[in-house]
Amino acid sequence: MTKVLTFGEMMLRLKPAGNNRILQAADFEVNYGGAEANVAVSLSLLGDQAAYLTKFPDNLLGDAALGTLIKYGVITDKVLRGGPRLGIYFFEKGASVRTTNVVYDRAGSSFAETKRTEFDWPKLLADVDYFYFSGITPAISRELQEAVLAACQYCQAHQITVVCDLNYRGKMWSPERAQEVMAELMQYVNICIANDEDFEASLGIKAFDGDMSRGIDQKADFKAGMLEVTKRYPNCHTVASVLRNIYSVEASQWTGLLLHDGQYYDAPVYDMHVMEGVASGDAFGAGLIHGFVHNFEPQDMIEYAIAASVLKLTISGDLNLVSDQEIRAIKGQGAGASMSR
Amino acid sequence: MTKVLTFGEMMLRLKPAGNNRILQAADFEVNYGGAEANVAVSLSLLGDQAAYLTKFPDNLLGDAALGTLIKYGVITDKVLRGGPRLGIYFFEKGASVRTTNVVYDRAGSSFAETKRTEFDWPKLLADVDYFYFSGITPAISRELQEAVLAACQYCQAHQITVVCDLNYRGKMWSPERAQEVMAELMQYVNICIANDEDFEASLGIKAFDGDMSRGIDQKADFKAGMLEVTKRYPNCHTVASVLRNIYSVEASQWTGLLLHDGQYYDAPVYDMHVMEGVASGDAFGAGLIHGFVHNFEPQDMIEYAIAASVLKLTISGDLNLVSDQEIRAIKGQGAGASMSR
Amino acid sequence: MTKVLTFGEMMLRLKPAGNNRILQAADFEVNYGGAEANVAVSLSLLGDQAAYLTKFPDNLLGDAALGTLIKYGVITDKVLRGGPRLGIYFFEKGASVRTTNVVYDRAGSSFAETKRTEFDWPKLLADVDYFYFSGITPAISRELQEAVLAACQYCQAHQITVVCDLNYRGKMWSPERAQEVMAELMQYVNICIANDEDFEASLGIKAFDGDMSRGIDQKADFKAGMLEVTKRYPNCHTVASVLRNIYSVEASQWTGLLLHDGQYYDAPVYDMHVMEGVASGDAFGAGLIHGFVHNFEPQDMIEYAIAASVLKLTISGDLNLVSDQEIRAIKGQGAGASMSR
Amino acid sequence: MTKVLTFGEMMLRLKPAGNNRILQAADFEVNYGGAEANVAVSLSLLGDQAAYLTKFPDNLLGDAALGTLIKYGVITDKVLRGGPRLGIYFFEKGASVRTTNVVYDRAGSSFAETKRTEFDWPKLLADVDYFYFSGITPAISRELQEAVLAACQYCQAHQITVVCDLNYRGKMWSPERAQEVMAELMQYVNICIANDEDFEASLGIKAFDGDMSRGIDQKADFKAGMLEVTKRYPNCHTVASVLRNIYSVEASQWTGLLLHDGQYYDAPVYDMHVMEGVASGDAFGAGLIHGFVHNFEPQDMIEYAIAASVLKLTISGDLNLVSDQEIRAIKGQGAGASMSR
Amino acid sequence: MTKVLTFGEMMLRLKPAGNNRILQAADFEVNYGGAEANVAVSLSLLGDQAAYLTKFPDNLLGDAALGTLIKYGVITDKVLRGGPRLGIYFFEKGASVRTTNVVYDRAGSSFAETKRTEFDWPKLLADVDYFYFSGITPAISRELQEAVLAACQYCQAHQITVVCDLNYRGKMWSPERAQEVMAELMQYVNICIANDEDFEASLGIKAFDGDMSRGIDQKADFKAGMLEVTKRYPNCHTVASVLRNIYSVEASQWTGLLLHDGQYYDAPVYDMHVMEGVASGDAFGAGLIHGFVHNFEPQDMIEYAIAASVLKLTISGDLNLVSDQEIRAIKGQGAGASMSR
Amino acid sequence: MTKVLTFGEMMLRLKPAGNNRILQAADFEVNYGGAEANVAVSLSLLGDQAAYLTKFPDNLLGDAALGTLIKYGVITDKVLRGGPRLGIYFFEKGASVRTTNVVYDRAGSSFAETKRTEFDWPKLLADVDYFYFSGITPAISRELQEAVLAACQYCQAHQITVVCDLNYRGKMWSPERAQEVMAELMQYVNICIANDEDFEASLGIKAFDGDMSRGIDQKADFKAGMLEVTKRYPNCHTVASVLRNIYSVEASQWTGLLLHDGQYYDAPVYDMHVMEGVASGDAFGAGLIHGFVHNFEPQDMIEYAIAASVLKLTISGDLNLVSDQEIRAIKGQGAGASMSR
Repeated sequence: MTKVLTFGEMMLRLKPAGNNRILQAADFEVNYGGAEANVAVSLSLLGDQAAYLTKFPDNLLGDAALGTLIKYGVITDKVLRGGPRLGIYFFEKGASVRTTNVVYDRAGSSFAETKRTEFDWPKLLADVDYFYFSGITPAISRELQEAVLAACQYCQAHQITVVCDLNYRGKMWSPERAQEVMAELMQYVNICIANDEDFEASLGIKAFDGDMSRGIDQKADFKAGMLEVTKRYPNCHTVASVLRNIYSVEASQWTGLLLHDGQYYDAPVYDMHVMEGVASGDAFGAGLIHGFVHNFEPQDMIEYAIAASVLKLTISGDLNLVSDQEIRAIKGQGAGASMSR
Repeated sequence: MTKVLTFGEMMLRLKPAGNNRILQAADFEVNYGGAEANVAVSLSLLGDQAAYLTKFPDNLLGDAALGTLIKYGVITDKVLRGGPRLGIYFFEKGASVRTTNVVYDRAGSSFAETKRTEFDWPKLLADVDYFYFSGITPAISRELQEAVLAACQYCQAHQITVVCDLNYRGKMWSPERAQEVMAELMQYVNICIANDEDFEASLGIKAFDGDMSRGIDQKADFKAGMLEVTKRYPNCHTVASVLRNIYSVEASQWTGLLLHDGQYYDAPVYDMHVMEGVASGDAFGAGLIHGFVHNFEPQDMIEYAIAASVLKLTISGDLNLVSDQEIRAIKGQGAGASMSR
Repeated sequence: MTKVLTFGEMMLRLKPAGNNRILQAADFEVNYGGAEANVAVSLSLLGDQAAYLTKFPDNLLGDAALGTLIKYGVITDKVLRGGPRLGIYFFEKGASVRTTNVVYDRAGSSFAETKRTEFDWPKLLADVDYFYFSGITPAISRELQEAVLAACQYCQAHQITVVCDLNYRGKMWSPERAQEVMAELMQYVNICIANDEDFEASLGIKAFDGDMSRGIDQKADFKAGMLEVTKRYPNCHTVASVLRNIYSVEASQWTGLLLHDGQYYDAPVYDMHVMEGVASGDAFGAGLIHGFVHNFEPQDMIEYAIAASVLKLTISGDLNLVSDQEIRAIKGQGAGASMSR
Repeated sequence: MTKVLTFGEMMLRLKPAGNNRILQAADFEVNYGGAEANVAVSLSLLGDQAAYLTKFPDNLLGDAALGTLIKYGVITDKVLRGGPRLGIYFFEKGASVRTTNVVYDRAGSSFAETKRTEFDWPKLLADVDYFYFSGITPAISRELQEAVLAACQYCQAHQITVVCDLNYRGKMWSPERAQEVMAELMQYVNICIANDEDFEASLGIKAFDGDMSRGIDQKADFKAGMLEVTKRYPNCHTVASVLRNIYSVEASQWTGLLLHDGQYYDAPVYDMHVMEGVASGDAFGAGLIHGFVHNFEPQDMIEYAIAASVLKLTISGDLNLVSDQEIRAIKGQGAGASMSR
Repeated sequence: MTKVLTFGEMMLRLKPAGNNRILQAADFEVNYGGAEANVAVSLSLLGDQAAYLTKFPDNLLGDAALGTLIKYGVITDKVLRGGPRLGIYFFEKGASVRTTNVVYDRAGSSFAETKRTEFDWPKLLADVDYFYFSGITPAISRELQEAVLAACQYCQAHQITVVCDLNYRGKMWSPERAQEVMAELMQYVNICIANDEDFEASLGIKAFDGDMSRGIDQKADFKAGMLEVTKRYPNCHTVASVLRNIYSVEASQWTGLLLHDGQYYDAPVYDMHVMEGVASGDAFGAGLIHGFVHNFEPQDMIEYAIAASVLKLTISGDLNLVSDQEIRAIKGQGAGASMSR
Repeated sequence: MTKVLTFGEMMLRLKPAGNNRILQAADFEVNYGGAEANVAVSLSLLGDQAAYLTKFPDNLLGDAALGTLIKYGVITDKVLRGGPRLGIYFFEKGASVRTTNVVYDRAGSSFAETKRTEFDWPKLLADVDYFYFSGITPAISRELQEAVLAACQYCQAHQITVVCDLNYRGKMWSPERAQEVMAELMQYVNICIANDEDFEASLGIKAFDGDMSRGIDQKADFKAGMLEVTKRYPNCHTVASVLRNIYSVEASQWTGLLLHDGQYYDAPVYDMHVMEGVASGDAFGAGLIHGFVHNFEPQDMIEYAIAASVLKLTISGDLNLVSDQEIRAIKGQGAGASMSR
């Protein structure tokens, strides 16, 4: 059975209960999430064999994060334990014209403090077919940047497919630093996921003008950007993107775009009422990898990935708790809701 | 004073708190509901004399369900007690493109296990003017199908108006079985409520193509279907329907249509932001019966019924906790919201 | 530093948890608010020196209301303590076509029972630059009407700017009584905020036909009404209004309009998904006063005020818990939401 | 069937969620209660015919209070509607050495504002066998004092048994005023319930030294006080008391004492872990009346009443939601808990 | 590594939030539990290899129950899926003198409807060292009784240790029926756990007089009863019991007793303040099995088991979420609490 | 007016809702606390002038912590802003024999990262009469140790009273390191608070054998230890201790002991049912300082301090939200609870 390993940081996520702001919160809802963990959980829920690699502190918070992965079937036997603390992020959901806030409290976490030597890649990647990381992991520390590089090199040498979601985070590093690091790592990437500002911030490729209310309207520019990626990085045979017109925190349109072996594939556009706009890119990535694992046709692949992605917009928490059947029910269409009873 | 008796099953309804999925639920919100109970509660809140007939187990859950009816003024002196258990349904609210899920756990309930002989219709219907049931009741068991039939026959013989909401439930029986049963019962029905798929699934009459995103657009087909109902079942002088264009779990348009004594009556269309899309058909039915009880003009009747129905879309729980005054405030219009202070 | 004093009643606000109606509420969310207190808190959060004058009972509820003001930095050293009780209002949030309900329980409150002689205006206004009250305060009692009048007279004699939000409340007094009182008070008002029905109900000036779904569409009439205000009351150099097209409890459009020294200034229109439609007028007033305090250009002033106002629509509770930075982020535009991470 | 009418005020009760203090409360738990309403609900749950007389405002809060009574089967057809507001009390539960706080907000309530002429006693008491009131009702207003007197006089003239729980409330009136009023009313009382300080505060009879940690230890003094009551008021054939040694908010001992037709009857002592120490006196009164209604032997009566009373200590909210079967299960014993499964 | 298989039914457990009664519950806390599942989770949390065998319906409730087991590391690869429904039990926690109520709603569950032929014991027990069941499993149905018997016979033939917790449930079967069935099964049991009434109800051996307030005081009778068990059933080399003096829902004393290879071992007595008195017997059983798996000395075994058991009394939900380290911290002592910081 | 400055770290405190363990927590209750902040809030609530010095990050969490202090009247104008993060601690409340767990996540906090040079003591202490710190502050970092030393030296030179609660935390430093640092700081301390293990761990003075179940029983040893403190550190004229017999998480006895100017003063013993055993030492310290500020007699001082301390055991959260009146109500006695209504 095909096996996917994802490598990154899972954090405790704290969100004021209901619609409260942090300043008025009497309770935080407790969730655990992080790009690469989210991808692993999605794949596991879709029936794939997904393993996750990180380092958790050896305390009750580490236990709780680990328990969350196990509950959803992720293979966690390679997870390291120890170090100072579990990273945290505070999530203050916006509304209408009020922007969502994310406050990171991840510095000094057990994962952030790992040394590259803690990762024995030949052993860790021994039975792996797909290796997934996002741009967040090398942004965390120099050591992790080197660890990712070593993993990529091992993969290339052993025919393991490397998947990278660029996932640029302006609160973690500058475009200059990101581009410097990603330029090297992209040499090894076979499947690249790039959304919105990622093209420019992570790769220095202009594909999007930054206006989130008209991402879909710039599809032609995205196509050009994608092509440029494959030109610059010949090992990269696939580039996939989520395109969005975001009108407010709740109202937006979503679609997907795929460049695979030189050919473009479009997904339908979904008119969305968004419950929670976090981690839908990870759901998209998981949908895409699921497509590769099961040899979907490219058109199916992008339709499946964007359907998985928009379903995440309806779920609370970082994890895309949906089934393959639920994705298929809305795949390839725009909307249409009824009740099953 | 005119008295209405409704006959069916009230269940414990369990819904994950907030927007959670069942898989992540740490709490279930507790409500009690069921089509016929919902109609009785609505009528009682509108000031009508409404009685409810069912069987509840003789345990704390049965007490709680009964207490809910009593709280809202429903006459419950004919409710039977005993049997194994209270039926349950789990309600997982959808969002945007994610469909709402209903998981029934009603098999083996006290009501489902009743025998037709437990219902002494001459006594139960002695002072009743309207008898209401929905297609769910005969779908529960053969015994209940016979019980409903006996009640209908008694009604016809004693000038009690029979109201039936076809309420087809695909998880309870097949169209074939439904049509077989309803064909017989419809001989006795005077007022028939039929929504969406009910025409075809319950009666085998084509009136709607199944596309929930364009129910209103098929008004002409609905009209034809309604007419066919009155032709096939001459005792049925009235057919009423809710027509909907459902774009997503939250966004939809609602209107009502009435065929009464051979004449059609249209209601205005409401653009709705839906909080909870359950039991609005029951609210419609109650509004309609309220109109008959108070001799409303047909045009008033359909406008009142659809206004009651769309208000239900704004209420949590199965019960339409609105007043006559609140229905009248929006009756005959489309929208318009302000604050009363 | 410029100092603002606001004068009015802060109440305990009780709202059924979640979307429940009062009839089904097992819990009430606890907040404290009132037009003038809301303005003071907004100003304080924007960095201005804001004091609040009221009377709280000397019990745990009074302590809690006072603590809320202190928490947000309002100067409360002039707040009176004593009297029978804290006023309360119950807030039942509507949804879609169901109207929001406010049940006042403010009669006999400590503030409502104050005598005019309890307010020593020369002392209270000694270091004040702006005095703010809303039409609610004189509506509470004859004594408070006289107290407001005395304060206004003192202000006029001592170059303190008087700001009044007409804030007509039909549940508190009739248009006749309001007009009689406000006609006198308006002699002293320099900056007048008038929304929707306020023009006619409080001043007898026709500016709006009462149809909340097309307030923005009547901008010309509003302009005429504003001009009439400045003509009738020559001390009033500024009139500001929020204009709205309200389509449902959630969906509406918002804009602002300013008449300042004979010139009109328009704000952009915001398409809003409303979380809570209460106290946004107070947020508007606070934004406007903040503009005056900091000598904003009139165009900036109205854009800032309406941006503050629409942000309030995204916050639970009476208090506009937003920062100057958040207001500036959406000022002068329509919408556009992204995530800061 | 024997019918009991109770006459008094039911209030909205607001309690900080969990163990919070009012100063830190983000939510209030919503309940409705009041001595005489609590007695009516208890009797109804025990299967007796219990009616309640009060006046509720004609708003959503009045509806909710009324709905609570109806839910538990109380006959409410004589309840008046109208007037300004529903009385409220805030309940801050203590813990260990920290005392429980009650903040009344009942002044100006609909019931408090009733006139004596609103109560047509011949009609209200037409089919009543027992009339119950507590000392709280005449403490509310002079009009209610007169209303109670008129009711008592009617009862005496028509062989209706009058039950009075003295229920002294120091926050409502002084001992002097209470004694003046109760001295007159006691002329008509047949069954008197007097706890702790009631003897002295309401009647000026010394029976208890005020030390709540040793109420049971003063049983001899209580007996003397009870005897004195029957001597002073010859129509009073029965006096019943709850005796308590209260060690802390959670830990206490409870027993009951009855003087009936000149003879004393003792109940066993219960060692209690108290969840909520409110309204247990009302539960005691209801238990006692239930005993009279069903002609219990005096020893059974006091054992039943104290068992009902201590069960209330385990229930949240004012209402004693227990069954006759549950009372009997612990009647006549001290403790002993197991699980029924 | 030694492997334990437990066989039984895991149910959805619904408990009114906080201390509410079912009649007043607006929310149910959601947990999943059942004797044999609880034992498996405990063992897994203690680091043992524990598998669980049951049948879950193929719906969202079945998924959630299964996810709970997986989260805590239980091996679930042999769990069957299908059948009508997940069993439920409602748990109404008592307080002080008010008894805890359990309402079973497990009839017609997927597990209850299994046929003996669905269990292929040679395959299911292939790599198992300990087979555990409780008296609940054969009480569910005749088919399950036969299934247990077949499993026991296979175990005896293949040197698999059989552990049985008699776990008599009066709401499931009569003593007569229990004794008839258990007499046969006990032929195969090697380790028997018997608490309180189990001796008499399940085996007809008198060891306890039924007074839960003095179980520990009857230790001599328990010893005699245990000895009688080993005499009657020579394959049973070990009998273990929890002995309790229960004074109220919160206050009780707990100790353990072991008869192993003809010798008695006593545990210390714990004075407990009980948070939740459910599933502590399962925690005891798991502690005992853990002792066998790791070859503890008998004295260590009983001390470990009772320490695990009393810790469960401090945990909400059916599952004993404690670590080996936490058990060891209180093992062999009575009480003593401090804070680790 | 006498002014107290406290110096330390305030953290976000996260506690699983209700009685849940961290592993099962779906929500965390949000509070903010820390020894020195708790002391400042207590003093402010008692009417004293209390200032707090710390450093908060310049983010929403820092705002929320600061808002908490301001709400309760603490002077915060000297609080520094900036640095990486707000310290956090997770609080898992134990029950009965299960120990309470505290998981610190405070490394790398804004306060922990401060440099000694950020504190300009002459300015910070200009108008201060009492300077308070606990042993936690120097345990955080070498820089803070030096900062405290500099503050103490300034105080000695300027007749500012130095109060130190030794507050040993084994998770922060070793006894060796603590003793080394405290030996130096104690030269400047005038009032020393030492509880339980503090004597030995922080000062190397044997006064308590470590058995928390019999702290009160070792009063003679505590007295000797206190005397030794005053001998070693001649500037220290006062030593105060809380003595406890802790039987379980809920059940314990509490008393206080004071050595002042060579004379001992005892407080009465309180039998406590503990709701939350955190921060009661801080409440004790605040009570003691309040006594000094108001020149209480020594006997009054220790009685007041221990009464404040045990009241904290009844409050959720770190802050002792009680009034002077509530402390006086239980001062000098053991227990006794009634209801104020």
